[in-house]
Amino acid sequence: MNDTRALIETLSSLDYEGMYQNDFLLTWEKSQDELMATFRVAQILRGLREANISPRIFDSGLAISLFRDQSTRTRFSFASAANLLGLTVQDLDEKKSQVAHGETVRETANMISFMADVIGIRDDMFIGKGNTYMREVAKSVQEGFEDGVLEQRPTLVNLQCDIDHPTQSMADMLHLIERFGGVENLKGKKIAMTWAYSPSYGKPLSVPQGVIGLMTRFGMEVVLAHPEGYEVMPEVEAVAKRNAEAGGGSFTRAGGMAEAFEGADIVYPKSWAPFAAMEKRTRLYEDGDWDGIDALEKELLAENARHKDWTCTEELMAKTKDGAALYMHCLPADITGVSCEEGEVAASVFDRYRVALYREASQKPYIIAAMMFLARVRNAGEKLMEILERGEPRRR
Amino acid sequence: MNDTRALIETLSSLDYEGMYQNDFLLTWEKSQDELMATFRVAQILRGLREANISPRIFDSGLAISLFRDQSTRTRFSFASAANLLGLTVQDLDEKKSQVAHGETVRETANMISFMADVIGIRDDMFIGKGNTYMREVAKSVQEGFEDGVLEQRPTLVNLQCDIDHPTQSMADMLHLIERFGGVENLKGKKIAMTWAYSPSYGKPLSVPQGVIGLMTRFGMEVVLAHPEGYEVMPEVEAVAKRNAEAGGGSFTRAGGMAEAFEGADIVYPKSWAPFAAMEKRTRLYEDGDWDGIDALEKELLAENARHKDWTCTEELMAKTKDGAALYMHCLPADITGVSCEEGEVAASVFDRYRVALYREASQKPYIIAAMMFLARVRNAGEKLMEILERGEPRRR
Amino acid sequence: MNDTRALIETLSSLDYEGMYQNDFLLTWEKSQDELMATFRVAQILRGLREANISPRIFDSGLAISLFRDQSTRTRFSFASAANLLGLTVQDLDEKKSQVAHGETVRETANMISFMADVIGIRDDMFIGKGNTYMREVAKSVQEGFEDGVLEQRPTLVNLQCDIDHPTQSMADMLHLIERFGGVENLKGKKIAMTWAYSPSYGKPLSVPQGVIGLMTRFGMEVVLAHPEGYEVMPEVEAVAKRNAEAGGGSFTRAGGMAEAFEGADIVYPKSWAPFAAMEKRTRLYEDGDWDGIDALEKELLAENARHKDWTCTEELMAKTKDGAALYMHCLPADITGVSCEEGEVAASVFDRYRVALYREASQKPYIIAAMMFLARVRNAGEKLMEILERGEPRRR
Repeated sequence: MNDTRALIETLSSLDYEGMYQNDFLLTWEKSQDELMATFRVAQILRGLREANISPRIFDSGLAISLFRDQSTRTRFSFASAANLLGLTVQDLDEKKSQVAHGETVRETANMISFMADVIGIRDDMFIGKGNTYMREVAKSVQEGFEDGVLEQRPTLVNLQCDIDHPTQSMADMLHLIERFGGVENLKGKKIAMTWAYSPSYGKPLSVPQGVIGLMTRFGMEVVLAHPEGYEVMPEVEAVAKRNAEAGGGSFTRAGGMAEAFEGADIVYPKSWAPFAAMEKRTRLYEDGDWDGIDALEKELLAENARHKDWTCTEELMAKTKDGAALYMHCLPADITGVSCEEGEVAASVFDRYRVALYREASQKPYIIAAMMFLARVRNAGEKLMEILERGEPRRR
Repeated sequence: MNDTRALIETLSSLDYEGMYQNDFLLTWEKSQDELMATFRVAQILRGLREANISPRIFDSGLAISLFRDQSTRTRFSFASAANLLGLTVQDLDEKKSQVAHGETVRETANMISFMADVIGIRDDMFIGKGNTYMREVAKSVQEGFEDGVLEQRPTLVNLQCDIDHPTQSMADMLHLIERFGGVENLKGKKIAMTWAYSPSYGKPLSVPQGVIGLMTRFGMEVVLAHPEGYEVMPEVEAVAKRNAEAGGGSFTRAGGMAEAFEGADIVYPKSWAPFAAMEKRTRLYEDGDWDGIDALEKELLAENARHKDWTCTEELMAKTKDGAALYMHCLPADITGVSCEEGEVAASVFDRYRVALYREASQKPYIIAAMMFLARVRNAGEKLMEILERGEPRRR
Repeated sequence: MNDTRALIETLSSLDYEGMYQNDFLLTWEKSQDELMATFRVAQILRGLREANISPRIFDSGLAISLFRDQSTRTRFSFASAANLLGLTVQDLDEKKSQVAHGETVRETANMISFMADVIGIRDDMFIGKGNTYMREVAKSVQEGFEDGVLEQRPTLVNLQCDIDHPTQSMADMLHLIERFGGVENLKGKKIAMTWAYSPSYGKPLSVPQGVIGLMTRFGMEVVLAHPEGYEVMPEVEAVAKRNAEAGGGSFTRAGGMAEAFEGADIVYPKSWAPFAAMEKRTRLYEDGDWDGIDALEKELLAENARHKDWTCTEELMAKTKDGAALYMHCLPADITGVSCEEGEVAASVFDRYRVALYREASQKPYIIAAMMFLARVRNAGEKLMEILERGEPRRR
């Protein structure tokens, strides 16, 4: 508990006021202090829970979740975070609801928000759509609040969009902070964010984009590598470059996995779909061109199959710093010989890092809870100290 | 908070004892005092929540929901109300469950009720079925309670049936009370409940029926208008007539929208299906006559299309009292040029009233919470004063 | 409340320490004291709730549910139990989630458990699979806990597997304890667990297996009867024999219903699928042999139809002790002339026992809550006395 107390005390040196009553949509919209506050509140909440102290701050209230794509991890992380703080998850299931029947986003956003404190949205399938949709919802509830329709303005958490996956990249970063013993130790560390082969197609770009957009903020040497044609969104690359310049690190590209892995402290090999193809798919969906979508899918799978050598083998791992780089993944990974014939990573590599990977994933509920906490509590530091002092048990 | 305290004090002059341990199925089964108590408790609960006082009265307990038709608004309103009072919603999803496999209503009603305080049911699709089903459930849990199977008798809330939609009409009425500055100011006001064209078919009759069955209780001049063939249930018209006679208002029919809108203080133009056609559809479903249902649907859509002039335009709005009648709708509305080519209302009319419409909708969670509160707490007034005095924060 | 206090005091004479932090997978893995502790805690929790005392022991926390088969009763019982103790149910819906997409059980088990106190699983469809799967999950979360991935090790409750249905058989047993005025009065009582005809096919064997595996522990004379070919798993029969020898009762087989019912104090006639056929079906599913499955289904239904005389009639009931044996069923029953043309039981028999059957079912939420309580609280007796003394109301 001394650690937790000390962590709470460090919050007073950070300026995170701007997070109160605000959404968490893209990490690069947040200041360095705000990101640090999020990591610390996540650690504090974990410390409290592990010490059997309940950080519940709501006696009632809803956390609305809207998943436009399948999810196990993020769904459970969101549910865990909401529950820890005292909110009840209410799913907006577009199949059960009337959303598809001519309702405008504005109307639905208000109708579900009368008693909502938080809205979490996953909308990652179509380029140019997901983040835009979130901003429409945010604008709608802001108007509803200003018009006196909503007594309070629920805040949004981006649970993955077409551009960023902040709950993932923040959990990944917190994992690094813990593994390397502090954010200061990450300066100058090399992280290789690389494409890797997977037999499936169309995985969102938000994970690599989230990683290059965030990790460049902490003085790290971020290297991106992928086969030709698998470019990520140019605007996110621009963000990564700007961040690296401002933060004293670097953002570069490597021609292949071997080059990227060379001397790396951390590797993050993962499949994603080409940005241009995803854009094309979005247009095909808009036109309802199902034959076109089928053709595109076949084309993309064939293209993928030309890059089966992009896989995280023991040989490649041996090229990393002391042959012992930290292997990261957002899970589930396509593991060669386990979950597929040929995939993103060799079984022996995955096995060696399994515990670390699970620990990485375990940060997500706390990151989401921290985002909610900072958005809903005006002075998080004071409130957390109050919770610590009170010591109300979670398990009575 | 002084307003809330004053509202709580007014409860002592109302006789609402009969609501304790009782269901809320049709507004016309409730006394004037009971309706007034419901409005006031809704306002009090809203006042408490807005003052960050938690009106939670359950430490645990379930609110069962059974939706036999799609719903966003009512589903979220029910979830919000349950959560505000401390109940957890448990959906009875007939696809997931074994309800369809030869179980009797009696058995299911008891099996889901061992720890249930409230059961909310939406069953509005078939004439003669929904309300009947609710009464079967009510009878079943009453028997279960008397037989010692259930330690308590859960109370029912009608979330829309074939006859009435009390949570909607009560929310609508509370909206009017607030807009007109008190129920006493509604005496003599003219409200036009009219049919309106929609490109969809088969919308329930429970909204217009709920409105004419409730608004006639408060001395209002209720005018019903619809094309020939779009009659509502005759027994509900009879209820409206009786109410008007008893309450000093009137219930009349107008030949068209123009006549109905003339000098109206409030207009409620909305699509619904003809009662006789809905009865026919119910029989076709019973017989499993899918061809017959298809044919009926085509016939009804063709019939609807003959009445596209039944639409709430600016021209019609100009005919209302000072050209400024309050426009109402249960949402979602079919808005011409927005959610459909031709619909119930002109976009400019809808836009002008959007904030009012959202506010109207915002009453529903509080109305449902009030119905639950009055059914589960013996002396609501005392309990609410206790809650106010205690001042336990909702958001700690 | 004196009864409840007295029941709590009796806990001190039982050794149930081994249940803390442990799973409940098969009744025959539990000691006699542990079973008795479960019955008593169930009764105590019921007593507390009926006295409006909240036995809530969690301020937050999740109860994960995974239903691989349809369920109404068990789903609601699990939800009720979790809610009573303060946990929020989070469904792992394999259709919504990514479980089917190459994820290993180990990974999923950890990913859903970061804030889970309890995991309830129903997996009863395939012989050799359900219980095995539960043990895999248990092993996975144990490892996760030991590896520091999970701060706590969630405990499992078997909500029905291929081998046992402990929440059902324990609820059934508690029903008997209450009906016969104490477990000591069950010594020497004859219970007939018999097959009965149903027009459906493929009902799990876990109910008869659960009954013969549990009831033989309490000195009862357990008689099993079924048509040739409807054998249950031989290992469970072996368990029943061992139990009977150890407990001073007996486990025998009868050639038909009439013989089994003769002089019986309790009868439990219920349809199930032949073990060998279920094994065959499991293999056909593994091979994806859909034609084979169809053929097997037809064959089984034809075989079933040869045993329509296996039905619980008034004539058979007349053969029982004083013609008044207690009729039991896990529900829903196939009732002749009610839920099907010819079924497991005559309508008049079912009707006479309806209240008892509903009461039997009402034990399940409390049995599940007791299993959770004993697995999550180190000294259940002390904690329950503390809860009783505190007297915190459930309905405030």
